[in-house]
Amino acid sequence: MRPLLRLWSRRAFSQVRPKQFPSPRVNSRCYSQTVLPHDSFGNLHRSHCAPFAAPTHKCGALCASDTGTQVVLAGWLLPERKISKTMSFFPIRDSFGTTQLVVLRKGDAAARLSALSDIPVESSILIQGQVRLRPEKSRRPESSTGDIEVEVQAFTLLNAADGHMPFVPSDPHNLANEDLRARYRYLDLRRSALSDNLRKRSQVARLVRDTLYEQDFLEIETPILLKSSPEGAREFLVPTRVTRHSDGAQEPQFYALPQSPQQPKQLLICSGGVDRYFQLARCFRDEDGRKDRQPEFTQIDLEMAFVSWGGTAPDASMCVGSDQWRIGGSEVRNVVENIIRKVWRQMEDINLEDSFRVMTYHNAMTRYGSDKPDIRFGLELSDISDRLSPRISDVLNTLGQSIECFVVRRSVDGSFVNADQDYQHESDPAVERILLTADNATTWLSKSRTVVLGLQVEGEVQEADLNEVLNLNIGDSIYLATRSLTPEGGSTKLGRARLQLAELAQRCGDYLPTETPHFLWVTEFPLFTRADQDKEFLAHGRWSSSHHPFTAPMWEDIEALYNGDIAKVRGQHYDLVLNGVEIGGGSVRVHDPTMQEHIFANILQLTPPEMASFGHLLDALKYGAPPHGGIALGFDRLMAILCKTQSIRDVIAFPKTSAGTDLLFKSPATVDQNVLHQYGIQPRR
Amino acid sequence: MRPLLRLWSRRAFSQVRPKQFPSPRVNSRCYSQTVLPHDSFGNLHRSHCAPFAAPTHKCGALCASDTGTQVVLAGWLLPERKISKTMSFFPIRDSFGTTQLVVLRKGDAAARLSALSDIPVESSILIQGQVRLRPEKSRRPESSTGDIEVEVQAFTLLNAADGHMPFVPSDPHNLANEDLRARYRYLDLRRSALSDNLRKRSQVARLVRDTLYEQDFLEIETPILLKSSPEGAREFLVPTRVTRHSDGAQEPQFYALPQSPQQPKQLLICSGGVDRYFQLARCFRDEDGRKDRQPEFTQIDLEMAFVSWGGTAPDASMCVGSDQWRIGGSEVRNVVENIIRKVWRQMEDINLEDSFRVMTYHNAMTRYGSDKPDIRFGLELSDISDRLSPRISDVLNTLGQSIECFVVRRSVDGSFVNADQDYQHESDPAVERILLTADNATTWLSKSRTVVLGLQVEGEVQEADLNEVLNLNIGDSIYLATRSLTPEGGSTKLGRARLQLAELAQRCGDYLPTETPHFLWVTEFPLFTRADQDKEFLAHGRWSSSHHPFTAPMWEDIEALYNGDIAKVRGQHYDLVLNGVEIGGGSVRVHDPTMQEHIFANILQLTPPEMASFGHLLDALKYGAPPHGGIALGFDRLMAILCKTQSIRDVIAFPKTSAGTDLLFKSPATVDQNVLHQYGIQPRR
Repeated sequence: MRPLLRLWSRRAFSQVRPKQFPSPRVNSRCYSQTVLPHDSFGNLHRSHCAPFAAPTHKCGALCASDTGTQVVLAGWLLPERKISKTMSFFPIRDSFGTTQLVVLRKGDAAARLSALSDIPVESSILIQGQVRLRPEKSRRPESSTGDIEVEVQAFTLLNAADGHMPFVPSDPHNLANEDLRARYRYLDLRRSALSDNLRKRSQVARLVRDTLYEQDFLEIETPILLKSSPEGAREFLVPTRVTRHSDGAQEPQFYALPQSPQQPKQLLICSGGVDRYFQLARCFRDEDGRKDRQPEFTQIDLEMAFVSWGGTAPDASMCVGSDQWRIGGSEVRNVVENIIRKVWRQMEDINLEDSFRVMTYHNAMTRYGSDKPDIRFGLELSDISDRLSPRISDVLNTLGQSIECFVVRRSVDGSFVNADQDYQHESDPAVERILLTADNATTWLSKSRTVVLGLQVEGEVQEADLNEVLNLNIGDSIYLATRSLTPEGGSTKLGRARLQLAELAQRCGDYLPTETPHFLWVTEFPLFTRADQDKEFLAHGRWSSSHHPFTAPMWEDIEALYNGDIAKVRGQHYDLVLNGVEIGGGSVRVHDPTMQEHIFANILQLTPPEMASFGHLLDALKYGAPPHGGIALGFDRLMAILCKTQSIRDVIAFPKTSAGTDLLFKSPATVDQNVLHQYGIQPRR
Repeated sequence: MRPLLRLWSRRAFSQVRPKQFPSPRVNSRCYSQTVLPHDSFGNLHRSHCAPFAAPTHKCGALCASDTGTQVVLAGWLLPERKISKTMSFFPIRDSFGTTQLVVLRKGDAAARLSALSDIPVESSILIQGQVRLRPEKSRRPESSTGDIEVEVQAFTLLNAADGHMPFVPSDPHNLANEDLRARYRYLDLRRSALSDNLRKRSQVARLVRDTLYEQDFLEIETPILLKSSPEGAREFLVPTRVTRHSDGAQEPQFYALPQSPQQPKQLLICSGGVDRYFQLARCFRDEDGRKDRQPEFTQIDLEMAFVSWGGTAPDASMCVGSDQWRIGGSEVRNVVENIIRKVWRQMEDINLEDSFRVMTYHNAMTRYGSDKPDIRFGLELSDISDRLSPRISDVLNTLGQSIECFVVRRSVDGSFVNADQDYQHESDPAVERILLTADNATTWLSKSRTVVLGLQVEGEVQEADLNEVLNLNIGDSIYLATRSLTPEGGSTKLGRARLQLAELAQRCGDYLPTETPHFLWVTEFPLFTRADQDKEFLAHGRWSSSHHPFTAPMWEDIEALYNGDIAKVRGQHYDLVLNGVEIGGGSVRVHDPTMQEHIFANILQLTPPEMASFGHLLDALKYGAPPHGGIALGFDRLMAILCKTQSIRDVIAFPKTSAGTDLLFKSPATVDQNVLHQYGIQPRR
């Protein structure tokens, strides 16, 4: 830590200030009347808040062509650099840039100007001076103001920085600890690393909005005080002073904060009043402090009426398994790709491909063991179940499992060889790593832990065939694991092992992910997954919605939906994945009220009150609701990627800790019981 | 009400549909495979959700130059107009406009196309057809698509409107009652009267943002989950599952929703990371259902560092009482005027003046009896206190009162003469109306109720002088009332009477307010007003802040602030008033931590916990916070004015009733006790 700054005396400056400043733009007669002797507390403070001339330029604005101009600048004073007895440099900074001030302590001005050296850094000051060209050798062309400096003629202290700052933000080499920076977030934001992120965020928001406006979208604000709904993750409640009486007792009434504007936006589209909706929407999720999640976050939220299959409607040549866009929502796809292309062109100077790659969920899981595959590197998975003996197949079938593997090839995957060797130490016990040697070349699978212990069958594999299929060589590493045949979450064991290897390889410097962003649409997710106990809501039956209950099935699977072949039904859902990170997801929605009711009643088996809570949506579908679809992109995550930071906290002005607390505003906090009583509630006994 | 629509049979259409649609852009082979016999529920529904070709144009897009083009349009079907046995017109509408469809029931297509007549209006359909020029005499140049019509070749029903719609939005002559329209807001939004408002709102939001971006503002999102603070009106609380233990008991912890981003935005500016902040910010106020207030609303919120007195710093020639901008914040003024000018130019085609009029609070109250004067008409007030006898003056002084009047002149104020005669019936008893006659010309004041009963002095007035000063003539009406010398709220009795007269005159058609918008800045408000019991917060002493405790005093009044002459202190506050409606307010803030502490501790006399809740702001001021100021404009109110509607509900997509309830989403609502328990609360016993 930097030593605490010397406490500066206000009085000293207030006495010298008046003389320093008659700016040419300020009527000095006016000043002479009002600068009273400092005989009272009031007068002293008057001088600190006295009128001052308007700054003529921002601190990042002056350049060579301004040479000779008289200017007034306001900003924060940075540390002095003494050049000689009579000359010092002071940078002055505002959020637009930094200008070098030159102070010459000569002649009449010497006494007045040397007082600048006593002002603590980070104080805000106003200076008057003249722009001059720097000597040739001192120019810094990399800075916008690098060609000039301003010779100070007079200055005014606007507000002195306290001598006891908890840390000095202009000192990048002494970064205070995270808690202290969170408590004094406003000082931390003075660091350009953070303020640059906020500037970028504002620029990207503008780009996104402009792109959408150009495509005839309207930005519509939807309610933040909404209704508690049984849709998914936990909601924040908002007590109201509206009360309802039931059985003689008062019942408190609550709004809920929206997890997303899903229902309002669908209703807007159903209304027909707005065919293209968007919003940079604030959303709220009361989740237990997951790392890098915020209780409030922002999404780029959009929805469109009459979304279709695009120019190339599905046809027979699009066989199952081909990686093509075979669902509706092609207009949403185009709009999103357009946004992303513009953002990357403008912010990153990268021209992205004309249309992003598409991969079905099935292929993503089979080839990468993940529904948000990182396709920047290989190590692709192979399902080897049907290369095994009938007996093993039977066992696998009974267990509802398959066997998959990937190979780190000594000859090809050089970047991963060291990582492969390090892997052992932190491996998932369910993932088996086998080094192929001359000794085990014909027994590696049949004697593997996975087969012997996991399946309890032995000696049923013809490794020779398999070695050829997998193109194995001595020295290669084989990663082996079983996988459930029904989808379980977003990744398989081997999918995770594959990512761990990449992380290890990156850490030891062998693997540097390509700079080119790899965008990928993942489509054709299963519409329903088996309900598990984690999902409290909308899962009374065996099935719960993989995403949300409004996603439409693929047209080809509608019959299965009504015939009860639920596991088979794929949704018209699409996720946008960037370098293995999901940055958004959306779908074509159900627009047929009978189908929506079937999903609610027969598949999700909602209770009558749950059904009732969707009554307005079912009604809205009945009045000529158009086919529609949309998407939500996580704006915080997108910005973190663009700002090249790991934490979304670095792209949010006032973030909360992972525990959901705000150290700056000291929230959440207790509330007086009298206040709670107005809302008909009290602390739980 | 329109009679209920005939229930339409889904089966009938699903059977004819497949034949109607092989669009040229859809592979028909694909269709023939998938259009199965309707032998099961699933197949029936498959056909309703079948892929369809992408619409080629929006319904407002086609014009004469598209003649001959094959098009695909999607939209809502409006009522048929039968021209002959073989020809009908159907308008098709989306949110971008309406296109006239022509259906010719001739030849092969007759049977297929006549099915269109059976589709209920408001159903969403897709049509394929060819653009043709309308016959010369049928063209409607006032409509963007008025030159063309589309001859339908095939159609697909996308979603049928239910036969039992609660009301038909396309029928403007049968407006359903307000409750029904609120419950079915999505149907109401299909009315172009409302959807046009939403479009306008989006356009204005874009204009505002663009104007601010061009002036180097950054849009920064501030927290919605904030801290309960003792700032003013009531806040909404948000219970959390974060708990704190004190004395062995769990204490529930709450966030609060912000009434405005006042503190976050000041902290942003103090940070120095952002010198120009703005946000279209959602704000929340838990006020008892005032007419046309919403519990959540949007403001155009901005804040700037280093705001100054502008080019013309205050000088001696700006004598007290002159209507000039004599406070800081001139940059805020310029930015706001710039926004407003752009909006009015773009949306209203009106070029506003280069700089808006300024009036001090003192002059506004004295001349118009209001701090948001409607200056579109005269009837200006006169304070006649110092025209009266010393004895009356003494009495007035003792009572802390003055006497003011305004005159409706028979000769000049023709528009108000009828209103003046009507006024009696609904008059405020404290306002006296005196008709000047030959009889009372020399006694009207001395014998007035105000003087005789109110002040209990008589015969002390020289009416002759006064009649000359006021330029009274027989037949004029004089409105007379006393007024408190210390400011009490935003208007005087006579100020209200003046507005009532204008309302009456408008109602009887005598007075039509000018179409030109009259913008006005009101400045130099008293910084503090006497605390009254309505204000619960921050008013332990005799004084409470007129606006909020962060507003800076006028420089000239700082001495009074420290010397205890509180009533004299004027603030650097500015309200923007349009035609007598306040559309925004802001101020230069206190940036001197000692002054802020003085206001908190010595004037508002905050308790230590209240002081502590402002600790972060006081700290932030200590670290070189720049002079700063900002403003918030009420976006909902602004849009209501631009949309020429009385109710802000007409410019909000999903508004709440004045009681704060949402009839569409049915919120607020009760919440299960188990859920409440997770937040450490329970209903009050």
